[in-house]
Amino acid sequence: MTAGSTRLILGNAVVVTVDEARTVHQPGFVAVEEGRLVAIGAGEPPAALRAGAEVIDVGGDILMPGMVNTHCHMAMSVFRGLGDDVADRLERYIFPLEKRFVGPEMVYLGSLHAALELLEGGVTTVADMYYFETEVARAADVAGLRGLMGQTVVDFAAPDAATPEEGLRRFQDLADRLAGHPRLRASIAPHAPYTTGRDLLDEIARRAEKDGVWVQIHLAEVEREIAWCRERYGMTPVRFMAETGLLNPRMIAAHAILVDDADLDLLREGGAAVSHNAGSNAKAGKGIAPVLGMLARGIRVGLGSDGAMSGNTLDLFAQLPQVAKLQKLAARDRTVMPATEVVALATIDGARALGLEREIGSLETGKKADLIRISRRAARMSPLHDVHSTIVYAALASDVRDVMIDGAWVLRDGIPTRFDRAAVIAEVEALAARMRASLGA
Amino acid sequence: MTAGSTRLILGNAVVVTVDEARTVHQPGFVAVEEGRLVAIGAGEPPAALRAGAEVIDVGGDILMPGMVNTHCHMAMSVFRGLGDDVADRLERYIFPLEKRFVGPEMVYLGSLHAALELLEGGVTTVADMYYFETEVARAADVAGLRGLMGQTVVDFAAPDAATPEEGLRRFQDLADRLAGHPRLRASIAPHAPYTTGRDLLDEIARRAEKDGVWVQIHLAEVEREIAWCRERYGMTPVRFMAETGLLNPRMIAAHAILVDDADLDLLREGGAAVSHNAGSNAKAGKGIAPVLGMLARGIRVGLGSDGAMSGNTLDLFAQLPQVAKLQKLAARDRTVMPATEVVALATIDGARALGLEREIGSLETGKKADLIRISRRAARMSPLHDVHSTIVYAALASDVRDVMIDGAWVLRDGIPTRFDRAAVIAEVEALAARMRASLGA
Repeated sequence: MTAGSTRLILGNAVVVTVDEARTVHQPGFVAVEEGRLVAIGAGEPPAALRAGAEVIDVGGDILMPGMVNTHCHMAMSVFRGLGDDVADRLERYIFPLEKRFVGPEMVYLGSLHAALELLEGGVTTVADMYYFETEVARAADVAGLRGLMGQTVVDFAAPDAATPEEGLRRFQDLADRLAGHPRLRASIAPHAPYTTGRDLLDEIARRAEKDGVWVQIHLAEVEREIAWCRERYGMTPVRFMAETGLLNPRMIAAHAILVDDADLDLLREGGAAVSHNAGSNAKAGKGIAPVLGMLARGIRVGLGSDGAMSGNTLDLFAQLPQVAKLQKLAARDRTVMPATEVVALATIDGARALGLEREIGSLETGKKADLIRISRRAARMSPLHDVHSTIVYAALASDVRDVMIDGAWVLRDGIPTRFDRAAVIAEVEALAARMRASLGA
Repeated sequence: MTAGSTRLILGNAVVVTVDEARTVHQPGFVAVEEGRLVAIGAGEPPAALRAGAEVIDVGGDILMPGMVNTHCHMAMSVFRGLGDDVADRLERYIFPLEKRFVGPEMVYLGSLHAALELLEGGVTTVADMYYFETEVARAADVAGLRGLMGQTVVDFAAPDAATPEEGLRRFQDLADRLAGHPRLRASIAPHAPYTTGRDLLDEIARRAEKDGVWVQIHLAEVEREIAWCRERYGMTPVRFMAETGLLNPRMIAAHAILVDDADLDLLREGGAAVSHNAGSNAKAGKGIAPVLGMLARGIRVGLGSDGAMSGNTLDLFAQLPQVAKLQKLAARDRTVMPATEVVALATIDGARALGLEREIGSLETGKKADLIRISRRAARMSPLHDVHSTIVYAALASDVRDVMIDGAWVLRDGIPTRFDRAAVIAEVEALAARMRASLGA
């Protein structure tokens, strides 16, 4: 089925709606028409709905909203596994590798590979930040993903820009290309407070304000960033963002680990969203972000995978148990961050972080049809005493069987419908071999 | 192929040996004959080895030792997802549920379901502790698993024993039935210091010493256990174990979270092994066990999943990133607990914890052929810059394609060879439905 061609009903499902009441229909059905959800309910679909519709029996599988990954560097999937367990890897590995290998072809290939992984893992919307972001957007467009595409800007020579001005021109080019795109939106992504100085951030704030552009930045992520902001500006990174005027509802602050209560109050007052990257933060030994404190203040929080060199995988199923367990550990309380809340963070809350909560993030009538089907075949997926718990603590990325975005299947039976998965993987493997040869590994 | 029928060569593999040098053959091969590994090497298998052999090209997939799960309650898989995120669940949920539902049929069915999950997730050896352990052993035997089967003994009426003496008789029955079994060994499992008193532990110590029996116990797991031991015995749980004489190389102490330096020194002096249950410990908000301190002292440490009501899944792939990340977090150092060490914990170190390191736990000539094949099909499994990192941070239980124990395939293309997976799952779902009906859920 293509978008808008006919009415499609997915029946005999466990429907996890993630509506306000966290309603589950077990069994239930979902009906899609012209790219939107037209009916969701318990039991059998009514006869009037079935008339003229294509009906698919999903055999007790789980249907839920597509997941929203609020922080990713898709193209870095070609570096996955390089330099793990190593100190100072940003300077020792990531920046040199990027200088050497990052070009438009590599970014397109890596991003298409990442798009494959995102779809295979049930992510339907992604917020990305990288270099040559027009190429990331091209890959996301080919794959059928929804997303916020962030052109990275830094205060030093970048792989795609000799100067910050060139980076800003790249953003403008991206914005022009994506104007009117049905699923992709352009965003400016200053790398971090310690790599983008005050003048550049002021300029970004001016542009963002004028055109209503969303801004993504790594914020309050590492100790030396805290030290840098204290020395240079005499304040925390979050307060520094407030000073620049960037701390507003169009900001997505990735990480936000090293934040105190005053920082959290500033985030709430400014209305900025946080992308919580539980797995990446933990793997780097950076700390546990105070997500409970954020949620208690009503700060918008979504989940992110970070790039494959940090994460190391891009789906959110891998994040869900980490999100729950790290908060339980930090609080020494097994009752906090329950499974229903974790599922919401990965879906409707992520949509809210990106300003898309009226269109996606839950299975409710009138919303866009972004949904995933999760197979219950594996032994660990039974019994199904509590479907939210099953999603958080037992389901894996590989259980995703079908993915629909805007009412169109972009993954069916684990195969992407819009590009050749084997060719992408083969090209990435060949590139990776050249990379290792060049590194002398 | 059945054990011993002919020589089998698995070629064109990425062979992760987990030998002392952590050798990887990429590409490489593994040869199996009469249930044992007869050759492992790099490149193509030599012609002399190939003569008369069955050769399987695994197409670049990963071969590694089967994983060793050192702490499990297999039968509890029927309770998976019940009472998550709830305080006091041992008394409020687990004990009442067990009183109501635990019988020999449920234990056999739940254990066979768990055996399916273990095989699907690449576990070839399991240390289990539960009630009606003869039924667990029967399921493990049917599935073809290797294991240490622990009959639980407590100081109050248990589902399978009105008195501790009856529990001990059940252990003796189990030991008699498993005498001479090629893969299964009987063990006594006193539940914990706060549920098995001094007299009972003394009796268990006597029997264990006399017959060389292995003892499994939950130790230093929860705060109230620490308080109980301090009040009742005036010492820590670990020192209390030392007093009973149980703290010796045949003890497997599960959890060992709340241990101080003196406890760790005692564990080392006694030679006891620790089963580290990273995921279960975190989900319950209990804390991060000081695994780096254990390894620095040379204490034997293996990994465990705990039961499905705590874990919630029984494979070790889910544990690997948690094991790495929680230690990195606790140390605030991304370089500790590198991927090579995590892979070792799941294999050779687990074997060492169970006293099986001469027979299993690594792919080395002469050892028993317990191995798994990991598919590299999913996008997240490429590129393969570092196979240990890939296993720890990207691979999932569902990537396990084939499992061999004692030279015989027990799982092929994801299907168990010795029992009907669909029938087991259907029976568990039916039991779970009756359970929910009975709970009024």
